[in-house]
Amino acid sequence: MNLPTYVRLVEVGPRDGLQNEAQPISVADKVQLVDALTEAGLSYIEVGSFVSPKWVPQMAGSADVFARIQRKPGVVYGALAPNLRGFEDAVSAGVKEVAVFAAASEAFSQRNINCSISESLARFEPIIEAGRQYGISVRGYVSCVLGCPYEGQVSAQQVATVAKELYAMGCYEVSLGDTLGTGTPLATRTMFEAVTAYVPREKLAGHFHDTYGQALVNIYASLQEGISVFDSSIAGLGGCPYAKGASGNVATEDVLYMLNGMGIDTGVDMNKLLLAGEHICKVLGRVTGSRVAKALLG
Amino acid sequence: MNLPTYVRLVEVGPRDGLQNEAQPISVADKVQLVDALTEAGLSYIEVGSFVSPKWVPQMAGSADVFARIQRKPGVVYGALAPNLRGFEDAVSAGVKEVAVFAAASEAFSQRNINCSISESLARFEPIIEAGRQYGISVRGYVSCVLGCPYEGQVSAQQVATVAKELYAMGCYEVSLGDTLGTGTPLATRTMFEAVTAYVPREKLAGHFHDTYGQALVNIYASLQEGISVFDSSIAGLGGCPYAKGASGNVATEDVLYMLNGMGIDTGVDMNKLLLAGEHICKVLGRVTGSRVAKALLG
Repeated sequence: MNLPTYVRLVEVGPRDGLQNEAQPISVADKVQLVDALTEAGLSYIEVGSFVSPKWVPQMAGSADVFARIQRKPGVVYGALAPNLRGFEDAVSAGVKEVAVFAAASEAFSQRNINCSISESLARFEPIIEAGRQYGISVRGYVSCVLGCPYEGQVSAQQVATVAKELYAMGCYEVSLGDTLGTGTPLATRTMFEAVTAYVPREKLAGHFHDTYGQALVNIYASLQEGISVFDSSIAGLGGCPYAKGASGNVATEDVLYMLNGMGIDTGVDMNKLLLAGEHICKVLGRVTGSRVAKALLG
Repeated sequence: MNLPTYVRLVEVGPRDGLQNEAQPISVADKVQLVDALTEAGLSYIEVGSFVSPKWVPQMAGSADVFARIQRKPGVVYGALAPNLRGFEDAVSAGVKEVAVFAAASEAFSQRNINCSISESLARFEPIIEAGRQYGISVRGYVSCVLGCPYEGQVSAQQVATVAKELYAMGCYEVSLGDTLGTGTPLATRTMFEAVTAYVPREKLAGHFHDTYGQALVNIYASLQEGISVFDSSIAGLGGCPYAKGASGNVATEDVLYMLNGMGIDTGVDMNKLLLAGEHICKVLGRVTGSRVAKALLG
């Protein structure tokens, strides 16, 4: 068994996490969070989203956040840009890398971003093209890769088709998201086996939700498929809109604990990470979603 | 990769779980719990402990519980018997299978059961001998197999030595417990590889704590080593005395969710299991420790 010796953690707490928290927080608190995550050694931080605040009020002020964070050389500060308008706003804010968001399920695509999968891909083309002109990399997300709240099962082949398109269009990396958190290890392996028939495994990332407690085991199953990039969220920020009171994103602390235990390098400092999580939970007035934080700070 | 097609879940909630809950509950509530677990399809339920109520007040009344539960043919109702006196009380109560409890760490053995590892093994000899006479099987526990609160690291070889002794003495199965919950998948595999040099894998069980969120991934790593018996606790009953506010035993619901997702048979009905967990949590006035229960019932 050859597991990767280094894993890149993509910290999505400030964007995907906070976006799904009930309570919006101030620009200053967001900046504090991003700076604390930089300090903890994360090399990729998803900072915000350039989308109408009418739709996602929690992401208002993303340009201000980008203006005020302390950028450390070598660290990528990314943002979600759902359309060309968002992309241009991101560029104006000095963003060097953006992400686009597709779904592996037609029903989810329609309900979540109001268009079919192929329409969403067509919408990303000018973004990726503009990215080439501006020298801005584009990361692609695919949601619902192990289940859909409306369609139920999603075939691995369908995931592979969408991932292949995003990669062919020019996304440098495609993050495969178990939005519902219903995935289990063998389904995870089957899904990655289908996708790696079209996209090299080093261009893929895993994005797992811990709603049913399966995130770490799915990450381990992915590591066994040679995947070495994983999205995670400090303190498990971000709820799950499809299961009330349940958690969504896997906590960065919990992923780091497992990787540390296996001697897999990430460059992230657990103590600093725990402090960052403790602080943002205080700001939000919520209990941490990280089991490691509960055990070590509880 | 050949995973087992059937897994036997050993439900330890009524004993290991309740013993570590702050609040003692009535005999009637214990009986209700055991009957609900029988109804859910569990084939092994650890019902109680025959130990002085001075030391473990939560386990007082174990004989009454055994007298009142509805026994279903084919289901094993086990009890912990730390010494010959406990064994005799268990036999009087109609118990057909008992468990003994050793540690892989000298310091833990001294602090937890007041004797060295070899003294504890010597104490089990007459129990196992008496078991042979009465036709009562004895299951062996080894605690601290992936870390000790006093010694820190515990070597896989040390675990193997204790497991080998218990097996040689006549324990029909040896359950290897990550008492601290600090184990991660590669350490789990290394530990099982060391033990299976002396004890056949089909005579071993895994007992994982979810304190750091690592239980399911360690169970998956164990399945990949051919282990097919796992201890778990309904609703994750049982705290962790070594990490305040943190969880201990992995929740049966969460293990079942993973196994169901992989098509591994257990004979356990998820809906009935969820109801059993919901009820005991109400009795205890606590929140479930199961992520699956939170997502599905929350």
